[in-house]
Amino acid sequence: MSKRELWSGRFRKQLDPAAKLFSSSPEDSALFGYDIAGSIAHALGLRHSGILSAAECSSIVEGLRSIYRSGRGKEDSFLSGSEDIHMAVEAELTRIEPDSGSKLHTGRSRNDQIALDLKLYCREAVVEIVSSLTELSRLLLKAARKNMRSVLPGYTHMQHAQPLYLSQHLLAHHWRLMRDIRRLQGFFEYLNVSPLGAGAIGGSSLPIDPAYTSKLLAFTKPFHNSLEATSDRDFVLDVVYASSIIALHLSSLSEEVVLWSSSEFNFVTLPENLATGSSLMPHKKNPDVAELIRGRTGRLAGNMVSLMMTAKALPLGYSRDLQETKKPLFSSVDSILDDLNMMKALMAGIRFNTKAMKEAASDQLSYSVEAVDELVRNGMPFREAHRIIGEKVAESLESGDEFSGLLKHKWPHMDFPSNAGESVEKRSSPGASSLRSIKRQLEASDSEYAQLRSWLRRAGRLTASVSKLLGS
Amino acid sequence: MSKRELWSGRFRKQLDPAAKLFSSSPEDSALFGYDIAGSIAHALGLRHSGILSAAECSSIVEGLRSIYRSGRGKEDSFLSGSEDIHMAVEAELTRIEPDSGSKLHTGRSRNDQIALDLKLYCREAVVEIVSSLTELSRLLLKAARKNMRSVLPGYTHMQHAQPLYLSQHLLAHHWRLMRDIRRLQGFFEYLNVSPLGAGAIGGSSLPIDPAYTSKLLAFTKPFHNSLEATSDRDFVLDVVYASSIIALHLSSLSEEVVLWSSSEFNFVTLPENLATGSSLMPHKKNPDVAELIRGRTGRLAGNMVSLMMTAKALPLGYSRDLQETKKPLFSSVDSILDDLNMMKALMAGIRFNTKAMKEAASDQLSYSVEAVDELVRNGMPFREAHRIIGEKVAESLESGDEFSGLLKHKWPHMDFPSNAGESVEKRSSPGASSLRSIKRQLEASDSEYAQLRSWLRRAGRLTASVSKLLGS
Amino acid sequence: MSKRELWSGRFRKQLDPAAKLFSSSPEDSALFGYDIAGSIAHALGLRHSGILSAAECSSIVEGLRSIYRSGRGKEDSFLSGSEDIHMAVEAELTRIEPDSGSKLHTGRSRNDQIALDLKLYCREAVVEIVSSLTELSRLLLKAARKNMRSVLPGYTHMQHAQPLYLSQHLLAHHWRLMRDIRRLQGFFEYLNVSPLGAGAIGGSSLPIDPAYTSKLLAFTKPFHNSLEATSDRDFVLDVVYASSIIALHLSSLSEEVVLWSSSEFNFVTLPENLATGSSLMPHKKNPDVAELIRGRTGRLAGNMVSLMMTAKALPLGYSRDLQETKKPLFSSVDSILDDLNMMKALMAGIRFNTKAMKEAASDQLSYSVEAVDELVRNGMPFREAHRIIGEKVAESLESGDEFSGLLKHKWPHMDFPSNAGESVEKRSSPGASSLRSIKRQLEASDSEYAQLRSWLRRAGRLTASVSKLLGS
Amino acid sequence: MSKRELWSGRFRKQLDPAAKLFSSSPEDSALFGYDIAGSIAHALGLRHSGILSAAECSSIVEGLRSIYRSGRGKEDSFLSGSEDIHMAVEAELTRIEPDSGSKLHTGRSRNDQIALDLKLYCREAVVEIVSSLTELSRLLLKAARKNMRSVLPGYTHMQHAQPLYLSQHLLAHHWRLMRDIRRLQGFFEYLNVSPLGAGAIGGSSLPIDPAYTSKLLAFTKPFHNSLEATSDRDFVLDVVYASSIIALHLSSLSEEVVLWSSSEFNFVTLPENLATGSSLMPHKKNPDVAELIRGRTGRLAGNMVSLMMTAKALPLGYSRDLQETKKPLFSSVDSILDDLNMMKALMAGIRFNTKAMKEAASDQLSYSVEAVDELVRNGMPFREAHRIIGEKVAESLESGDEFSGLLKHKWPHMDFPSNAGESVEKRSSPGASSLRSIKRQLEASDSEYAQLRSWLRRAGRLTASVSKLLGS
Repeated sequence: MSKRELWSGRFRKQLDPAAKLFSSSPEDSALFGYDIAGSIAHALGLRHSGILSAAECSSIVEGLRSIYRSGRGKEDSFLSGSEDIHMAVEAELTRIEPDSGSKLHTGRSRNDQIALDLKLYCREAVVEIVSSLTELSRLLLKAARKNMRSVLPGYTHMQHAQPLYLSQHLLAHHWRLMRDIRRLQGFFEYLNVSPLGAGAIGGSSLPIDPAYTSKLLAFTKPFHNSLEATSDRDFVLDVVYASSIIALHLSSLSEEVVLWSSSEFNFVTLPENLATGSSLMPHKKNPDVAELIRGRTGRLAGNMVSLMMTAKALPLGYSRDLQETKKPLFSSVDSILDDLNMMKALMAGIRFNTKAMKEAASDQLSYSVEAVDELVRNGMPFREAHRIIGEKVAESLESGDEFSGLLKHKWPHMDFPSNAGESVEKRSSPGASSLRSIKRQLEASDSEYAQLRSWLRRAGRLTASVSKLLGS
Repeated sequence: MSKRELWSGRFRKQLDPAAKLFSSSPEDSALFGYDIAGSIAHALGLRHSGILSAAECSSIVEGLRSIYRSGRGKEDSFLSGSEDIHMAVEAELTRIEPDSGSKLHTGRSRNDQIALDLKLYCREAVVEIVSSLTELSRLLLKAARKNMRSVLPGYTHMQHAQPLYLSQHLLAHHWRLMRDIRRLQGFFEYLNVSPLGAGAIGGSSLPIDPAYTSKLLAFTKPFHNSLEATSDRDFVLDVVYASSIIALHLSSLSEEVVLWSSSEFNFVTLPENLATGSSLMPHKKNPDVAELIRGRTGRLAGNMVSLMMTAKALPLGYSRDLQETKKPLFSSVDSILDDLNMMKALMAGIRFNTKAMKEAASDQLSYSVEAVDELVRNGMPFREAHRIIGEKVAESLESGDEFSGLLKHKWPHMDFPSNAGESVEKRSSPGASSLRSIKRQLEASDSEYAQLRSWLRRAGRLTASVSKLLGS
Repeated sequence: MSKRELWSGRFRKQLDPAAKLFSSSPEDSALFGYDIAGSIAHALGLRHSGILSAAECSSIVEGLRSIYRSGRGKEDSFLSGSEDIHMAVEAELTRIEPDSGSKLHTGRSRNDQIALDLKLYCREAVVEIVSSLTELSRLLLKAARKNMRSVLPGYTHMQHAQPLYLSQHLLAHHWRLMRDIRRLQGFFEYLNVSPLGAGAIGGSSLPIDPAYTSKLLAFTKPFHNSLEATSDRDFVLDVVYASSIIALHLSSLSEEVVLWSSSEFNFVTLPENLATGSSLMPHKKNPDVAELIRGRTGRLAGNMVSLMMTAKALPLGYSRDLQETKKPLFSSVDSILDDLNMMKALMAGIRFNTKAMKEAASDQLSYSVEAVDELVRNGMPFREAHRIIGEKVAESLESGDEFSGLLKHKWPHMDFPSNAGESVEKRSSPGASSLRSIKRQLEASDSEYAQLRSWLRRAGRLTASVSKLLGS
Repeated sequence: MSKRELWSGRFRKQLDPAAKLFSSSPEDSALFGYDIAGSIAHALGLRHSGILSAAECSSIVEGLRSIYRSGRGKEDSFLSGSEDIHMAVEAELTRIEPDSGSKLHTGRSRNDQIALDLKLYCREAVVEIVSSLTELSRLLLKAARKNMRSVLPGYTHMQHAQPLYLSQHLLAHHWRLMRDIRRLQGFFEYLNVSPLGAGAIGGSSLPIDPAYTSKLLAFTKPFHNSLEATSDRDFVLDVVYASSIIALHLSSLSEEVVLWSSSEFNFVTLPENLATGSSLMPHKKNPDVAELIRGRTGRLAGNMVSLMMTAKALPLGYSRDLQETKKPLFSSVDSILDDLNMMKALMAGIRFNTKAMKEAASDQLSYSVEAVDELVRNGMPFREAHRIIGEKVAESLESGDEFSGLLKHKWPHMDFPSNAGESVEKRSSPGASSLRSIKRQLEASDSEYAQLRSWLRRAGRLTASVSKLLGS
């Protein structure tokens, strides 16, 4: 740590070691490959503009690639003692290629460089998250297909509302994930703009060509405005926000796993290899994985708040506060990918106790709406039918007489559901609970998957530009 | 409040008045028109399916329209004493049209109804916010055009970094808003799906037609899954999130207004009619409006957190917790529209003190990068040039000698900028600071506006479906 | 709104009506009484310092009291059209007492005035919340006394862990509230410092006496530092934080009410007058009140975030951003008081289904720790005993044989619990689950209540100073 | 990772490696010493109750101490591959002391153990933070003493309000920190309650003695209720909240450092060893340290939100979600201690440019209140005086005539301040801006320090109990 900083020309004193440690960013290890790929693109751009000679450029590119090859997997130790990833890479390059290395930073700044690194990181994160969401959604669909006609109670307010097919329930979670995917795809489109060439805030007086490097890095286009390009972290917020929403969706699914694995519900049995025991109570088998996913929602939302508070009231132009946007980003992306992975394992291993579900769904009161509808079909105004059936509910609860018997007795010629399956099938409007609706949803999903696969292929080609530059 | 609730058939006791008050939602006044329009669409749908007769349908539609006409502008008193907007409207309709009114709720639930109301609210909110963003952005562009060549210091870390044109600075804010618009447009697309017909959670056993009502309300399509449709509040989160990001952008602009109107900066003069005085200090003229916009960022971010915390770990199927999503939504939409309005007033009235800006930009040290670049152009490696110029900076600071003189003395034949304007113009790469880049941005904006206008027209047609249904 | 502002001497133009509306604070109605009481204290202070004559002072005091009497209960209309409560009161006083009224603001600023109002508001809020917490805690204690020996399953990870007495469970919630009370009492002590006399930021050149007005308003002492006194809103954060923690505790209790009232648990029955029905499903009886309390946790936490974000990075000296601290404060205090009230109603009306609880607690596996302990008492190392009993658990689950039978068979002479009651009573260490521990807790609570009553009396005397000044 | 878990008796399958990794807590390294000290106390307690023999106890204690000695400083690798710190320590102890080691966990659970570890961590964190706050506050006092009579403009709304002494400004920050200290001291008192002996949720059937271990660990008393003791994380929230408030205070001070080191203010010069340069712009000297402290406020507030969201709606009894309370706690404590350290370095090294401050304070308009007061002293009602002086302000601004000249001309015999120093000194009420008030504050601080030192001594004795148990 005793070496002088590369920017220290105007300074007479060295940076205090504690200050250096305080202002360093070991979390930059997540940017290792992106930073180097960005530097390679920059060097190729300098060559393209005639600022570097062919030999200088190739010495830089080779140097950077060898740094990548040798530092990969050892990012933490590579960074150790450095202020940040940018200075670490430049210093190492200058060590191995002194002449050309000291030309690498020509015409750029750490300000456009870090914006670039974060864009590349976010772009790949989006693709990975979309890919993982797709896999989880397929597992939900698979479970839905397997449990197409198993009935369970549908709940509102945690009370039995109306019976549903388990497939409808699983598809509901699936559709949430499909929406998460669309949100990420939208963000992807407008994050994919290159900031390289924006310099510190005002571009460069050297003849650099942002459009050229933008193409090398497979961006849609370069930035419009150098000041904006170096101040912008909205794309970080977007990725962290999208991850938070996914976390909320997973928290909902996890809550159900926790509830359903309780003795009282007993709707699911967790695979032993995804449950843990108690240090004290030998009989326990706990749904820790689901609880952890649920609890980690807080982490994601907290990261969102960190970013917003950090960004609040910063004037244009880079402020060092922006360094604080990195940890919440990396934490959110890592967490959501882990959460998705574990949820996939859960969904692959969980056993649905369809018998217990069916029994719970045999609560006749929960077919009350079909009874109302039958009265409506027979000419009674809805609100009156609702009131009358409500009174029958009260009568049944007080007398202990069976609800269906009371209905049958009063309206012997009408057609009320006598079990959960009938209740579910009667609701046959599009999107509703009957089998026809389930099948339609499965078909709609298939066509969405086709589009999704093609999107993933296209996006994968874009992110592959990084590995190509890295020569790997 | 002593009347029985419409749903109270099975209850022997009345709802406790305190509990009724606690669970009522006076904030529903914001949904007044949307709820009625949704009910009209529902009634037309019931007619379409043959559930209502032509006469019943028309009596309901007329009744609802008359409720709309007479309650409009008096929403609060209309709601007073009611549990929520849905019950208030149904009760009033039943009062004026007893026979048909009691048939209105056939085949639907408050669960799909509130989801519908919120969708219609959000859809219109998005269009209004986009429209207001467009106007603010035009004011920024106008100011940029007017101050195309005024120089000011560009800052990083609140320190003079490099001179810029004021137009570049204003355009940077403009581009942020353009991104905000795109984010909202993306959200608009996938919020525009109708939940009507999803019922409580499982659709209906009556032959309702969600596609028909979806078309009446100008949605793209109806829901896939009834359970999901009634549990979903993601679109609320999306709108609140998008508003928070706008608030962050406005906080940045406000921070600059506050700083720039200080004695120390003196870069802007606020119009007297947008500044306030002090109750004690007769000389004060305060940038309250900008401070309030900045401070209200907290309100927006807080609303975001409220929603996330409320949504966390809710199982599928409506839970009453979701009532708590309304206030944060309405608060965020109202706040951001007010903020945008006031920022427009500020941008229309603010006076830029370009002389003071120019003077501040005459700090020669801030042309140091062009000096480095000149050395690079003359063959010196960048990092060495950086170091050497850094040492000249230190020499100038210590000796008190002029920086430009020191450079001239050392490198008499080189071409260093001698003022801010030269420094700005030298940086002529695309998107950078020179006039050429400014002009290019203005052109790019023009073409984006063309698209934006056509989007606003289309979106306006969709939201107009509500007024059409209301007959207004 | 066309009148000129009281501070407008130096302004040539009037405040724009939209800006006035934007910067006005209708929420100030919550401060009505406090603002007037503060002004009365200030007037008495000015008299004490000889700045006002006895006649002037008495004319001001009487004028203010009459404003209080006539505006009370009509705060909203009193405020309408005014910038804030301070200007509204001063203007009205000047209207009815022109000569003395224009002297009221001598030696003070809205900056110390609003700090004072908020302190008085917070002080009383703390006392009210503590008082409401005490009442809720007494209801929990009462229920605990009534259900001293009812057993229910104790849960960890939502799985049956070990049986407990219902009293232990209710006492756990009670102790949380006692901690909430202590937190508020601590905050009370250091919020009770008067800011009056701090002026705008730098006190006054008139001979005002902050210690005198501090005493009149029953503060412990006046501020140390005028700049700090007008910038400080920590006490607002403290009250909002304390309310958030209470909300978290209530969310936990509410979650249990919701779960326990499900068909699957059936541990409680809600009183009909605290449950609501469904607009569509006639059989529903929903725990809305508990869901709303749970959902409103988000509102409280959101308010916390709003405040923090607003306060972030504000330099010393009043900034208008601080206006944004009022709404979150009032919202949090109102919400938590409402939540506590409704939870009291719930706890007073809920019926515990002790039979269902007992049945659920009859799960023999949940006595496994006592089995381990018995082996330990007979000399087996704990970890070995844990493993062996664990294997018996597995054996019982796989064979379907009764767990207790397996134990009896293997260790015929040992003393294992045969029912939930025995399991609970065996755990007789202090604070643990046996009856002895329950009784000890009840005694400890009684002695804490004695202290609490005396605190409430003392605090009530302090807050009464406000009504005394108001002559009411 | 292929060894079976210590709790796995009832499991037939091993925990999935990914699930193990997902549910492990490497962050537990922060608890290393506390966990071992807690285990030593527990072992001594088991001996005290006769559950362990003297030899067993001493073998355990010695084993644990040797684990501490050898693992200290290598916590990460010690934990690697383990589920958590508790299992890692027990496994290692059992490895080195097989017979006695397997008895360590007798009569306790990880649930009371982790609650204990976190309490010990928080207790020490509070003492460290208080100690660091004390040191920072002393540096502020020292700077205040050194700059007792330097004047600077006092600001409201970022506009010149009234001149102040720099000492008053620095003392304002000091008093904030003193309040932070009191908040932490309050939290300390009620966090210092031992949870050891609460077991999983219901204590133990073995004759353990929570009061004995509570005393060994220097707690005030043991828990009241075993269920509550294992569910409680309020003390974590308290510490994280208190840290957030400190962060807000530091963000305010940092904002001032950033502003004041700008060219426009130029009120301070940062020491070179605490400033950094630019990779591109050789002239830059940036206040990064202050920006980072300001930016990290977001991290602290985000942690607060994480915790609240995680805690929301958890029923009583340990849920695994609570694992997610550790990272935010450790992150907040580490961050605030680092922030305080760097702020101390800044305050020790910063140079105040009192000449520039004085010049900025020479803005005569900012003495307007003393002019008003002088008119009041001469009999004019305040509001009239305010208006008239306001008009003089407008006249001065429009005519360009000197404000003091206009006053002198109009009221030749009155005594208006002619410079900043006079303005400051005229405001001589207690706590206001004159030298007398500064001196009084310095005295008050001295007496608070005396109490503080004695508190720190007492608290230090409590936390020393941990090292004593560890034999270090």
